[in-house]
Amino acid sequence: MALARIARSGFGRSGGAIGGYSLQNNYIPKASSLGNSSRGIRTTPHFQFQNAERIAEESESEYEETRYAGLEATKPGEKPRVVVIGTGWGACRFLKGLDTKIYDVVCISPRNHMVFTPLLASTCVGTLEFRSVAEPVSRIQTSLATEPNSYFYLASCTGIDTDKHEVYCETLSNGALPHEPHYFKVAYDKLVIAAGAEPVTFGIKGVKENAFFLREVNHAQEIRKKLLLNLMLSENPGISKEEKNRLLHCVVIGGGPTGVEFSGELSDFIMKDVREQYAHVKDDIKVTLIEANEILSSFDIGLRQYAINHLNKSGVRLMQGVVKEVHRKKMVLNDGTDVPYGLLVWSTGVGPSQFVKSLNLPKSPGGRIGIDEWLRVPSVEDVFAVGDCAGFLEQTGRPVLPALAQVAERQGKYLVDLFNKKIGKQNGGKALSAESISLGDPFVYKHLGSMASVGRFKALVDLRQSKDAKGISHAGFVSWLIWRSAYLTRVVSWRNRFYVAVNWATTLVFGRDNSRIG
Amino acid sequence: MALARIARSGFGRSGGAIGGYSLQNNYIPKASSLGNSSRGIRTTPHFQFQNAERIAEESESEYEETRYAGLEATKPGEKPRVVVIGTGWGACRFLKGLDTKIYDVVCISPRNHMVFTPLLASTCVGTLEFRSVAEPVSRIQTSLATEPNSYFYLASCTGIDTDKHEVYCETLSNGALPHEPHYFKVAYDKLVIAAGAEPVTFGIKGVKENAFFLREVNHAQEIRKKLLLNLMLSENPGISKEEKNRLLHCVVIGGGPTGVEFSGELSDFIMKDVREQYAHVKDDIKVTLIEANEILSSFDIGLRQYAINHLNKSGVRLMQGVVKEVHRKKMVLNDGTDVPYGLLVWSTGVGPSQFVKSLNLPKSPGGRIGIDEWLRVPSVEDVFAVGDCAGFLEQTGRPVLPALAQVAERQGKYLVDLFNKKIGKQNGGKALSAESISLGDPFVYKHLGSMASVGRFKALVDLRQSKDAKGISHAGFVSWLIWRSAYLTRVVSWRNRFYVAVNWATTLVFGRDNSRIG
Repeated sequence: MALARIARSGFGRSGGAIGGYSLQNNYIPKASSLGNSSRGIRTTPHFQFQNAERIAEESESEYEETRYAGLEATKPGEKPRVVVIGTGWGACRFLKGLDTKIYDVVCISPRNHMVFTPLLASTCVGTLEFRSVAEPVSRIQTSLATEPNSYFYLASCTGIDTDKHEVYCETLSNGALPHEPHYFKVAYDKLVIAAGAEPVTFGIKGVKENAFFLREVNHAQEIRKKLLLNLMLSENPGISKEEKNRLLHCVVIGGGPTGVEFSGELSDFIMKDVREQYAHVKDDIKVTLIEANEILSSFDIGLRQYAINHLNKSGVRLMQGVVKEVHRKKMVLNDGTDVPYGLLVWSTGVGPSQFVKSLNLPKSPGGRIGIDEWLRVPSVEDVFAVGDCAGFLEQTGRPVLPALAQVAERQGKYLVDLFNKKIGKQNGGKALSAESISLGDPFVYKHLGSMASVGRFKALVDLRQSKDAKGISHAGFVSWLIWRSAYLTRVVSWRNRFYVAVNWATTLVFGRDNSRIG
Repeated sequence: MALARIARSGFGRSGGAIGGYSLQNNYIPKASSLGNSSRGIRTTPHFQFQNAERIAEESESEYEETRYAGLEATKPGEKPRVVVIGTGWGACRFLKGLDTKIYDVVCISPRNHMVFTPLLASTCVGTLEFRSVAEPVSRIQTSLATEPNSYFYLASCTGIDTDKHEVYCETLSNGALPHEPHYFKVAYDKLVIAAGAEPVTFGIKGVKENAFFLREVNHAQEIRKKLLLNLMLSENPGISKEEKNRLLHCVVIGGGPTGVEFSGELSDFIMKDVREQYAHVKDDIKVTLIEANEILSSFDIGLRQYAINHLNKSGVRLMQGVVKEVHRKKMVLNDGTDVPYGLLVWSTGVGPSQFVKSLNLPKSPGGRIGIDEWLRVPSVEDVFAVGDCAGFLEQTGRPVLPALAQVAERQGKYLVDLFNKKIGKQNGGKALSAESISLGDPFVYKHLGSMASVGRFKALVDLRQSKDAKGISHAGFVSWLIWRSAYLTRVVSWRNRFYVAVNWATTLVFGRDNSRIG
């Protein structure tokens, strides 16, 4: 392994001397396949080719200094540097717990906050404010903002060189404004990949262009803007009945917890707020939830039936169907049915992101980054992965865990204990120094239960798989109280806990806000 | 006048019979100049030409029905319809007070909420949440949402035909999404134009492309996003010292209350939150306020001096200068100085909007819609104007009032009393029926005083022109308390009053939130 590293960097540094243009241009892919054969997989193809193109223009040493200036490897005597990619549940649980007396920490993510995803659906209709479900990462781990050698970088990670122990990044653009991306690298002693997953569209035409996802706060903002716009446009005089019905048809694809909760929130919004604040169109707005199989398939059958009855009563039309293609104003189902829509929310689950796909690392079934029982990525050193982007390798004999906040959070917690109590205590924090360290018990996931709200002060709580309460499942108002209080206590900061409570109280007293901003 | 109306609509309806293509194409401008000569000014040039183009394609009657379907004139026995253009201070004060037992009301505006502009600067740095300063118009006047013949239309007004008593509208687009504008018309019995004003740029090159204004909630959102982006980009490794300084240079152009308050909020944010949450760059961030003459020129000289001293102490650099042109990363002043910047906020006051310019109505000095002492637009019937878009005609002998929330609100209040107590009570609500009605006392503006916060719990209160307290001006912490409580009591709804108070309290306890959303 050490040989491969030396070979590679030696190769790089003498790049100018080796020969002409075409050899240089081919250099990195070659080195990479050399790496692959000797000890597995090292760099991302994406990064390789970026590199390769640039090397054609400038010598590599110059390139390294000018284009990929950045944080160099830590020196002996300095604290080891942990680099965390991502700001989701797994990353933030890890960051929160990390002992910054032992480690310096660098977090790289295209967003500077964690999203409290279980409450995201509530923000689309104004039950909660957007800010209440976003937690700045610098409050979760204050060292990122205050310690001289810890940083948060607002950037996308484009590649990893596991030999050099380096991560390559590109700064974020500012929406529509002109942008000159800035590239940099960050050397790590330990790397935690918690980059999350992406919504799956099954390659269906038109989904990306026309549907909204519900994963980020700005997705919720866009859904809210579109919903309020449609409500208002449908009131305009001279609009045809057909167009009015289309504008007011909200379609949710996917009957998992997100889809069901969003449908429930929408029906609450319609029954209370649309009735009061858009009285002219209150009888024309419709919600349809389309699912290929059955809704809430991971829940107990009794709860599932409860949810179906409740959604029906709330006016949500449940429809079994498979989407074939999506156009701007209608979608076509597999059986040929046309479904005109005004708002389309797509929540059919998640799959590996482009970034994860591009990584030349071992993969689990389903294409996630392959990990062993200690959440390490085998065949490379000092790399760990948690959350939706990670899955147990086939050889571990364990199933790939579902893409749930619960899983990611538990993995983050396990991993930070490993870092603080095992690796850190045994001086294994520096790069390539943890080989002989005993890591103790492997990670074991115990599902604590599932919850989903279905609107109108009703929720489902399924504790069948919990260790404490085997076989218990419950639905109704008490579950809704459990749902609210469980999430309220899990909201990360006191500030947001306070805001969520205040939002809920004001929604009860004053109703939802319907300003359409932007 | 009646003759002109008949002539015009007769002309229109027989359009097909009059002659060929070119005559039709010329029809509306001709009719308009005919109108101009007989009784002043009736339609907007913008609307005329839109019209003219379409008439070439289709006969006018077809055009009227298909393209401009909409609300027809009210029939005898129906309540008179008041159409309000705008949702600013003037429009909302009017809407709030309107007696909907007497009138049906239609409000047309590209935004569905009022913005509490004096607190907008605080939202840019997270002292207040965006939603706390936005008040949905359907809460200000619930009839808009609930009464069968009252409506809020999210649309831009493109023209007015004061003869036909009709307003022409175009629906709003949804940002970047594809959009087919929908056109419609709304007939009015009485029209209140409260369409506001636009920021002035003095034709300086590059302002519109590169500077942020601070008039709407989404402006504040954009400023916040840019500020947080710059703070984070400046932390990225490998960035040059020069580029870092540029990114962290916030420049405010214009030393009026908005510019000063925004500078004060920025310096608060820097001294408290940047120091804690962006410790790596805390010494590099700078604020410069550039003003051509002197800051807060409408305030008492003692207060002005206080503000200058306070801003200097807070680290805001005051600079006298005139901007010549603005580029993407720097601006050039008249004396040739280059000023590199990362964030540029432009607040040099407001002037007539494109819409107001396009209206063929009498104009006041400065190009606003000319009004008489009862806020009527003379030479046309049933049209009133309030707020930043309106100004006393020269022949009234009164000065054009400053573009202040205070003025617009007072005018809205005066006008709604006129509508409820004079016009309504004397059955003058219907179109062309108010000629003989006595309107009572004309509108008289008494300035109650000016306030501006300068940051760090300090504000200026200038009551020199107030009737209650002649000659009093005060600056400091007590003024700041007056400033906060005065605005808190003026926030329109209890809901937002509560939220503003909660936001202020949490900012004190937890500091400002720095999630960068979107």
